[in-house]
Amino acid sequence: MIWPPSGGFFDIIIAMTTLIKNATIIPMTERDLFFRGNILIEDGIIKGIGEGTERADEIIDAGNMIALPSFADAHTHLAMTLMRNYKDTSENLQSWLAEIFPIEDKLNDEDIYQASRLGLAELIESGCTVFADMYFHAWNTVKAVKEAGVRAVIGQTFMNDENDAEYRISELAPRILEEIGDDSRIRLDAAVHAIYTSTPGCYERATEWVKERGARLHTHLSETRKEVDDCLSAYGKTPAQLLESLGVFSVPTYIAHGVHITEDEMEILKDNNVSVVHNPSSNMKLASGIAPVREFMKKGINVALGTDGASSNNNLSMMKEMNITALLHTVANMTPSAVKPYDILEMATINGARALGLEDRIGTIECGKEADIVLINTDDVNMTPVNDPFSALIFSADRKNVDTVFCQGRKLLEHGNLLTIDKSEAIAKTNEQWEDILRR
Amino acid sequence: MIWPPSGGFFDIIIAMTTLIKNATIIPMTERDLFFRGNILIEDGIIKGIGEGTERADEIIDAGNMIALPSFADAHTHLAMTLMRNYKDTSENLQSWLAEIFPIEDKLNDEDIYQASRLGLAELIESGCTVFADMYFHAWNTVKAVKEAGVRAVIGQTFMNDENDAEYRISELAPRILEEIGDDSRIRLDAAVHAIYTSTPGCYERATEWVKERGARLHTHLSETRKEVDDCLSAYGKTPAQLLESLGVFSVPTYIAHGVHITEDEMEILKDNNVSVVHNPSSNMKLASGIAPVREFMKKGINVALGTDGASSNNNLSMMKEMNITALLHTVANMTPSAVKPYDILEMATINGARALGLEDRIGTIECGKEADIVLINTDDVNMTPVNDPFSALIFSADRKNVDTVFCQGRKLLEHGNLLTIDKSEAIAKTNEQWEDILRR
Repeated sequence: MIWPPSGGFFDIIIAMTTLIKNATIIPMTERDLFFRGNILIEDGIIKGIGEGTERADEIIDAGNMIALPSFADAHTHLAMTLMRNYKDTSENLQSWLAEIFPIEDKLNDEDIYQASRLGLAELIESGCTVFADMYFHAWNTVKAVKEAGVRAVIGQTFMNDENDAEYRISELAPRILEEIGDDSRIRLDAAVHAIYTSTPGCYERATEWVKERGARLHTHLSETRKEVDDCLSAYGKTPAQLLESLGVFSVPTYIAHGVHITEDEMEILKDNNVSVVHNPSSNMKLASGIAPVREFMKKGINVALGTDGASSNNNLSMMKEMNITALLHTVANMTPSAVKPYDILEMATINGARALGLEDRIGTIECGKEADIVLINTDDVNMTPVNDPFSALIFSADRKNVDTVFCQGRKLLEHGNLLTIDKSEAIAKTNEQWEDILRR
Repeated sequence: MIWPPSGGFFDIIIAMTTLIKNATIIPMTERDLFFRGNILIEDGIIKGIGEGTERADEIIDAGNMIALPSFADAHTHLAMTLMRNYKDTSENLQSWLAEIFPIEDKLNDEDIYQASRLGLAELIESGCTVFADMYFHAWNTVKAVKEAGVRAVIGQTFMNDENDAEYRISELAPRILEEIGDDSRIRLDAAVHAIYTSTPGCYERATEWVKERGARLHTHLSETRKEVDDCLSAYGKTPAQLLESLGVFSVPTYIAHGVHITEDEMEILKDNNVSVVHNPSSNMKLASGIAPVREFMKKGINVALGTDGASSNNNLSMMKEMNITALLHTVANMTPSAVKPYDILEMATINGARALGLEDRIGTIECGKEADIVLINTDDVNMTPVNDPFSALIFSADRKNVDTVFCQGRKLLEHGNLLTIDKSEAIAKTNEQWEDILRR
């Protein structure tokens, strides 16, 4: 019996029980483990994993599917879909930001809402159901997240000084929190832009706010050589030393990039349980450099993956990010499999969940966890023969192979079709907003 | 009026005249040129490009499409789709070849035919209509190429010594030539494996054969550091010096990889009009190194792109290869846009055609050229807004955006669906053959 028997485009499609049948399951609980079996989902929770044939309201034949935890994009700027491929031949990060900042000053609520919706469509289509965002007017992103049915860690952005931080805490954060309401899938963290845009006082005030709220702190760190050099000149400290001295790491912290992190700084990150979110496409495209990911792993630092947003990537596909991570660190280390396919799947799933403090709820396929699952279709030209499912996912698979996506047991994508976002409308509305922005 | 009004799966779909209407055309005739317009195809030839509204047997509304020359995969091992993701955690190129060679000894005609068909499906789906192949039992690949309706430069493989070369010329090449028959879209070149598997005598005999036939010579060159070191030890020459001394470059030559080519060798390649086929995914994955592509370009060497086949890549998407080329050389040179999107589109289109000696027939959209054209759908989440069509193609687009593909005016792909290959059958048959190979 299949439920629902029929339904309009925007119907909420939650089966009481869903059985994903006969899948190649990669639970991400044990290195290189995979097996054939069923996954039973009940009211959004994984209730059974194994061989039994069970009854369910909805049964999905997954004989040609790899089932694994859906991906976590642990660092993005979602609404920057607006600026995709815009002025992206700039000389470096600083000159590119100089092109982007004037545009950002013009953005309004509708821009952010539509651009977020488009970004969510792209995330879901590439198998991602949770993201850590850093962007402005985030109440609009929250609205889009709730409609799309994904999970999010929204960042209240901070930059400038402590007075500006105060304003953001008293005036902006409440708007975001009000929009989040009692949605347990959305959390508000502090997203402090960077040490070159935010004063020590700003970092301190944001840290204090995070501590009060039991949230986390998200920031760009050590993205470019220039940032490191300027930090050394201004403070006599490396970026990680600076943040440690400011007490930032007294709250759970995840840093984006970490391209120029030194051996000594790795000790600081490890001692303070700081996660690093690796953004390989963006670091390559902006010529920021190659993050020492293999060294992070050797030190036992938690490494997650991110897309960094559509304006420096220029898409939001975690499938692509995984492939590039594998290729980049292999050649950077001149060592085949320097970073193994399984390591990269960890980065994109459970390590992302850990960075965001969600590892008790998502990131693996285990009984009791919430059912955030992606089904990858192996019945395609680029996945034949499969041979090794880990290599197949990292080296062969792409966005086109993403068949079905669940978040908390709710189906958001089915046979590649979005169920909670009207794709054509999202595309048209974003184009309209962007044309309007360029006229403003 | 649309032609054909209907048709079975395997009907040959050639309209007398086809009008691609209102596309964003990137003709690849002039740096950064793009414009909106129509393309008229008649009997496989581009007959008109411009603004006029014209009658045609088939009219394609391409308002949401970028039209550009379809891609050339200038170095691949097509039938190695069989070995996709097989034992690909090997230590280096040599140890990986040691896993692959015993499998290759078992391959039969049916294996090669089915694996080639699968590979062609993947090439077409990612917008490619011509490839340079280097693999065994190539008459089977030719059969698949003719059925699929693509173009190919097939390599008669050479390895070992001049006696073995003689055998291949007298016994194997005629079988391939017979299968090619009078199909003007398929040519037979010499594909000499590498300096570490083929003697000077083998290279000389293959060169002589190519010269007699007015064909070209295709070979792996300077792929790994070890190859270069061994060549220096054995011959006291670098790989390019060796081939030059053997007279190989007296025939038109395209070399795959060129990862460890020196400044001096670049002069040799340039002087002899040798093309380099860059295979970034494979070079990264096998930790071979980073080819000095920017330096090749500065020297005026023709640089094409290749996938190197599904067993070292592990797919056959030229879309992916273009993206990785851009990201890799940007970070390798620590210079944003070190290799510009337009440069990379050239590598994947006209430079590929040049490497294969087909630049008078394909590689640009110009009146009089044969209509090998790909339409990329921009009406998708990852392509909104387009902003810059060159950046969009290189950084945002992927295989999922490939909508329609023509080869010599014949439509091979329509809205992402293959018209000349039964995809399900290709997948099933390849899996069957592979399982059988593992049992042999």
